[in-house]
Amino acid sequence: MNKFKLEQMLKDFFIEDFGDLDVTTDYLFNEQERGTLTIQSKEAGIFCGESIIKLGYKILDENANVSLLVQDGESISQNQEIAYIEGSVNTLLKGERVVLNLIQRLSGIATKTNRAVKALNHDHTKISDTRKTTPGLRMLEKYAVRVGGGINHRLRLDDAVLIKDNHISFVGSVKEAVKRIRENIGHMVKIEVEAEHEQQVVEAVESNVDVIMLDNIEISELYKLIQLIPRDITIELSGGVNIQELPQYRSLNVDVISMGCLTHQIESLDFSANHQFEKERVL
Amino acid sequence: MNKFKLEQMLKDFFIEDFGDLDVTTDYLFNEQERGTLTIQSKEAGIFCGESIIKLGYKILDENANVSLLVQDGESISQNQEIAYIEGSVNTLLKGERVVLNLIQRLSGIATKTNRAVKALNHDHTKISDTRKTTPGLRMLEKYAVRVGGGINHRLRLDDAVLIKDNHISFVGSVKEAVKRIRENIGHMVKIEVEAEHEQQVVEAVESNVDVIMLDNIEISELYKLIQLIPRDITIELSGGVNIQELPQYRSLNVDVISMGCLTHQIESLDFSANHQFEKERVL
Amino acid sequence: MNKFKLEQMLKDFFIEDFGDLDVTTDYLFNEQERGTLTIQSKEAGIFCGESIIKLGYKILDENANVSLLVQDGESISQNQEIAYIEGSVNTLLKGERVVLNLIQRLSGIATKTNRAVKALNHDHTKISDTRKTTPGLRMLEKYAVRVGGGINHRLRLDDAVLIKDNHISFVGSVKEAVKRIRENIGHMVKIEVEAEHEQQVVEAVESNVDVIMLDNIEISELYKLIQLIPRDITIELSGGVNIQELPQYRSLNVDVISMGCLTHQIESLDFSANHQFEKERVL
Amino acid sequence: MNKFKLEQMLKDFFIEDFGDLDVTTDYLFNEQERGTLTIQSKEAGIFCGESIIKLGYKILDENANVSLLVQDGESISQNQEIAYIEGSVNTLLKGERVVLNLIQRLSGIATKTNRAVKALNHDHTKISDTRKTTPGLRMLEKYAVRVGGGINHRLRLDDAVLIKDNHISFVGSVKEAVKRIRENIGHMVKIEVEAEHEQQVVEAVESNVDVIMLDNIEISELYKLIQLIPRDITIELSGGVNIQELPQYRSLNVDVISMGCLTHQIESLDFSANHQFEKERVL
Amino acid sequence: MNKFKLEQMLKDFFIEDFGDLDVTTDYLFNEQERGTLTIQSKEAGIFCGESIIKLGYKILDENANVSLLVQDGESISQNQEIAYIEGSVNTLLKGERVVLNLIQRLSGIATKTNRAVKALNHDHTKISDTRKTTPGLRMLEKYAVRVGGGINHRLRLDDAVLIKDNHISFVGSVKEAVKRIRENIGHMVKIEVEAEHEQQVVEAVESNVDVIMLDNIEISELYKLIQLIPRDITIELSGGVNIQELPQYRSLNVDVISMGCLTHQIESLDFSANHQFEKERVL
Amino acid sequence: MNKFKLEQMLKDFFIEDFGDLDVTTDYLFNEQERGTLTIQSKEAGIFCGESIIKLGYKILDENANVSLLVQDGESISQNQEIAYIEGSVNTLLKGERVVLNLIQRLSGIATKTNRAVKALNHDHTKISDTRKTTPGLRMLEKYAVRVGGGINHRLRLDDAVLIKDNHISFVGSVKEAVKRIRENIGHMVKIEVEAEHEQQVVEAVESNVDVIMLDNIEISELYKLIQLIPRDITIELSGGVNIQELPQYRSLNVDVISMGCLTHQIESLDFSANHQFEKERVL
Repeated sequence: MNKFKLEQMLKDFFIEDFGDLDVTTDYLFNEQERGTLTIQSKEAGIFCGESIIKLGYKILDENANVSLLVQDGESISQNQEIAYIEGSVNTLLKGERVVLNLIQRLSGIATKTNRAVKALNHDHTKISDTRKTTPGLRMLEKYAVRVGGGINHRLRLDDAVLIKDNHISFVGSVKEAVKRIRENIGHMVKIEVEAEHEQQVVEAVESNVDVIMLDNIEISELYKLIQLIPRDITIELSGGVNIQELPQYRSLNVDVISMGCLTHQIESLDFSANHQFEKERVL
Repeated sequence: MNKFKLEQMLKDFFIEDFGDLDVTTDYLFNEQERGTLTIQSKEAGIFCGESIIKLGYKILDENANVSLLVQDGESISQNQEIAYIEGSVNTLLKGERVVLNLIQRLSGIATKTNRAVKALNHDHTKISDTRKTTPGLRMLEKYAVRVGGGINHRLRLDDAVLIKDNHISFVGSVKEAVKRIRENIGHMVKIEVEAEHEQQVVEAVESNVDVIMLDNIEISELYKLIQLIPRDITIELSGGVNIQELPQYRSLNVDVISMGCLTHQIESLDFSANHQFEKERVL
Repeated sequence: MNKFKLEQMLKDFFIEDFGDLDVTTDYLFNEQERGTLTIQSKEAGIFCGESIIKLGYKILDENANVSLLVQDGESISQNQEIAYIEGSVNTLLKGERVVLNLIQRLSGIATKTNRAVKALNHDHTKISDTRKTTPGLRMLEKYAVRVGGGINHRLRLDDAVLIKDNHISFVGSVKEAVKRIRENIGHMVKIEVEAEHEQQVVEAVESNVDVIMLDNIEISELYKLIQLIPRDITIELSGGVNIQELPQYRSLNVDVISMGCLTHQIESLDFSANHQFEKERVL
Repeated sequence: MNKFKLEQMLKDFFIEDFGDLDVTTDYLFNEQERGTLTIQSKEAGIFCGESIIKLGYKILDENANVSLLVQDGESISQNQEIAYIEGSVNTLLKGERVVLNLIQRLSGIATKTNRAVKALNHDHTKISDTRKTTPGLRMLEKYAVRVGGGINHRLRLDDAVLIKDNHISFVGSVKEAVKRIRENIGHMVKIEVEAEHEQQVVEAVESNVDVIMLDNIEISELYKLIQLIPRDITIELSGGVNIQELPQYRSLNVDVISMGCLTHQIESLDFSANHQFEKERVL
Repeated sequence: MNKFKLEQMLKDFFIEDFGDLDVTTDYLFNEQERGTLTIQSKEAGIFCGESIIKLGYKILDENANVSLLVQDGESISQNQEIAYIEGSVNTLLKGERVVLNLIQRLSGIATKTNRAVKALNHDHTKISDTRKTTPGLRMLEKYAVRVGGGINHRLRLDDAVLIKDNHISFVGSVKEAVKRIRENIGHMVKIEVEAEHEQQVVEAVESNVDVIMLDNIEISELYKLIQLIPRDITIELSGGVNIQELPQYRSLNVDVISMGCLTHQIESLDFSANHQFEKERVL
Repeated sequence: MNKFKLEQMLKDFFIEDFGDLDVTTDYLFNEQERGTLTIQSKEAGIFCGESIIKLGYKILDENANVSLLVQDGESISQNQEIAYIEGSVNTLLKGERVVLNLIQRLSGIATKTNRAVKALNHDHTKISDTRKTTPGLRMLEKYAVRVGGGINHRLRLDDAVLIKDNHISFVGSVKEAVKRIRENIGHMVKIEVEAEHEQQVVEAVESNVDVIMLDNIEISELYKLIQLIPRDITIELSGGVNIQELPQYRSLNVDVISMGCLTHQIESLDFSANHQFEKERVL
């Protein structure tokens, strides 16, 4: 993860949530009173949010002490203690909402990805995300997918070629599209083609692309198409695949199944924040 | 909505998704070839995203022509045409993902809010959001809640006082907390207190706060507590209320039920984008 | 105060004042030579600027030692020592102007507000600011008003409703305006109406708004209008009230008197900065 | 003026004042209803704010029609019409406060500068500003000084050398300070020395600096010191000079008198904004 | 190219060059006087800068008329007219330096790249850039390389894997490094290994990487190593190759030769800007 | 140098180079493994880049230890150790490219400037840069020119007047142009005029400007023109002067020779970065 981006994002998010002051907390507490905050899970799942908690509290209060009890990618149970932060009461109360909003979403994505990986339960086939991420949060959400055991598809439009149906229909054919791309593209960029029927698969194979995406195709048809593709071309299944259906794709032995739902439907994992005065804790 | 913020957000989101270039589209099409894009619903729900589509395509291509066929807040059916954009093929292909990612989330929130409003089906009691919004998107998500028929709780920590359990336990009592706030607070700011049992309700009433939040309380207990609160104090129910349970709160006749799930769990409403060459369309 | 905003503002202000280098100081001193800077008042008043001095010198020179001898809100006399900073001579000389420019303006506002509070000398009636703040400095100027003993009116257009004469004349009546607002507004937002004559006061009362602003009305008329307003509606006087005239409003017993002049006319409180070489100090 | 900076500043200021929405105006008016806004002076003075009004309303509403009836630097009388803007009622109402806040301050500075120029009433001696400007607004405030008939001192620390008392006392002597600067400085940068007594003036003359600032010196003493300075060195008077005292400096025939009060004490010139529905206007 | 990034860059560059005002041009010309500017080459080469000129003058002056007489990638001769801009004299004079500074550097890079492509004169082997670009200008410089006939290596550290000597020595072996990467990497990312001797080449081949970079190896040795690499692995030569030496690599028939010097040593192509009053032109 | 600007620039440059993650380094190393990095020169020259290395590694890794073995402006030989950094292997590997890209360019500029200063070998005549700097890097490049022994011309358009040929031809005469500028300009701003022939020199002298630039004039002609200029007006030679030709201008005894090539053609000085595991170093 890029820590310069993350720090700027966290500052922006705190500014969004705080505004000019906290009319509750700032009028109740000065910055001298100290306390502790325990972040606890309210549901079982996969935790994702180490750097949010560490960097978040560090920029909120450089004198805060943050103890993380769980690492990114660990399975957590309900009511498990995740982190323990000692700092100024004022800061702990103010910062809680943004930190929770983030780790709940990221742990939700990691948990869902992990559920998909386990539902598929395959040595070779990997689960991938898509570009259907929340605007502004792609770096974090793609990280959460990796934490959950998935892999990342393109990060953005500049790091890999994906020739989709609309590109093909405008250009005229898969072959012509790949040819035009090849005239300009660098040697470090993979080329993927979305194929919807046999002819497109054949053209993609003849064009020697790196990856063929079989998009929205019936399982019975998939078996046939996959026979047409040599083993050194990566095969990606795509198109509205949900977690329940994953087992039925197991025997296809494709390389990748990409699932928009990992980041398109955000099922946050719930956490709570419990505060204590420092002196009470000492007792 | 603040259009200066929206424009900056859209530019940031396009930069996040595009990177330095679109290695597929930029190598296939120049900016002269023109085409059309039709955005269509794939599910029924409440539409939210007018300004995303209008401002989004305007900043992508100042010569694009955008026709919106639906307004924010309208019920849409499956496969309904939402918008029709004529512009350069290059731009239409590039911009599609960000626009869809946004209107899917916002329409999802508006639809869910509207489902809650209808499930409650009450003349007086309103459905409100919380601060559990996606970091970076609060302005948009709170707008979507209004579009769906809900109202907004605090926008951020500076526009209203909400004395929560942690504040109370640190300060010692509801009365003392309200007293401290009153010494500093402006006359345009409402004060809300979160009450979890009878004594706190009584104190909040005696402190003459503007709003009492009854948080995580059994229905049977709620009937009793509500009796203690005079009619000029707003009553808000809160605490893990979900849409299915809403009807059972109907007869409480409270003023507001706030629901974190409206923005905490994002069930995107699905839309598709269909492209056509201009000349084909003319035929 | 939001420290993330403050830090960004201070960096922007230092960049505005420094440009690319300090052609005087950078050519005279390296960063090793150390000295001390004493900030001293040149006039009596109310001090405001703790966080400017602390955070300002911290970001200028992380090795600087800052001792503040006065807290925000304290009365200071002429020639009183305010702060003592030990750091690199280069940094102390460069940073002085921005820090002084800020604390002079903020202390000027706090002092003027305090003068108003004392001139009014009232147990109940409070002095409030307006939105007539310096663009870019609202967070700081509203803070200075609080430091001087005043309260804040709206922070911006999104945190409270204020239906002004122009809104009313466009909509047609106070009643209709309040009705339209009520259809959308959240339960945490107060509604204020600006009333200029009896009928508008009556309508505002009937509309049960939270606050009525009596704007630009003769004192004799004010006595009559105030009788029409029940005690649970906040009464705010407004309209070109200056400090000298405040005592004549004392017996009206209103809740708030708002004064644009607190931030509209900035009478900076003067401070000076005196530097010394460290070695001299040691002697 | 740098229009790229101005546009960014205006957007930042509108965001500061608007927040996420205008809970009054946005709930009362859509963007279709149109009206007019007349900006009028409430006091006589020198107008400054053309580009604020033109660019401000252009970025608020690209379909607004702005007619400016007065140019920067013109004398205006009380109740004079300054500008006339036709646009969406929603936008006109929202944008008014920021625009007024800016033109009031800038016209206040231009007016005060002009008062100083007229009080001095001198063919040769010019009135200059200082670096005591409002943080964030220096470009605008220095512009307003020029509009009022004054000239600008340094824009920031990188465009001219000013060796002040603290620099001299750290370095040891004027001569040594000028010598060190000369070793590094470019040929396009002027060197000014602040002199407080005869010896410093003599050293500055011998060092052949471009400008000598006589700071905080009695008039009787000034006459003597000025005799020591050859005519090709610019002489600047400085140090708490106020407008009333200017005539007594007239016969000194110096080149420049710099006055911190031009921007240090902001006496805003008052303007009002009057709105009308378009249809009414048509009648 | 990403136009949102480009527009922000151009604004930043104009702000860097203009500061708060142009003390020459702003005091000589108002914005009404109009004139023309002809940009002309002073050397032969490959032109790169269409979008700089078009977007640059559009944001400087929305009423400017820009005629481009040459397209990116065209060969230009000495003294050839490149573009003709009609607009306000004030704007044309101010904007010239930034526009020239950019198109000179970009055309310099395109020209040098093209010289390399021609010196190599090969059907198959391509010339690639590296990450040795000017900080802040990578998007533009990588574009210029493409315009000159080259291809782009990685855009940044997130779009392709390049396991370099330091990675290998820390990890222990090529095999282990590739294995660790493979556990995490997405299917759209290529893996390249830098190999300096036979064992590393063998390991890289056995690890089935996408690209092998032969770095800083004698030509005689290169012939041997290339025999070890199957044809479906891309071969890249690297390491201080300069244009003069390119022909000697021709017979190696590798896929790519990457050259840091394309952007590491910037030989700007010179252009001049000639201004005329509009009326003179009409005559 | 302005450290606030520098820190923001470094963060922007690291973000440009890193993107969202380093798919090589982040998958190979965690942040716990530590190592060392030695930066070494590959060519002799003048070093420039102290603050890049110090601040760069500080913001990359606050626990890094940076030892600089060379100061800005020092002559370095080939293969000299420049800096030694101890920190996390992950960070050292990631940050290397940006740091090298910057110090190579800056040292290249310092070296070239120093070569010019030595080629001219003159007690009085100084070498100056121009505004032909790389967009975005002017502060750094002007610093490098000073480090190399040169002086800076204008930093930007707001700090000094330079009336060029185009200004003169639009206005009509040197005299008229200087007169117009004098009506507005502050007393801290120098005025330079570009003169191409005798009449312009005479007018510039009569206008008593601060600096006369003799632009693109034959040496024989230069001798004549220089006689016309009194010694208190600074004389600058300009116009395509290159380093080889400098000695022939020696006897002219002008004050400044400005050379666009210092920053227009960037000949980077080469450095390498060598990494070691910490444990190896301990041995």
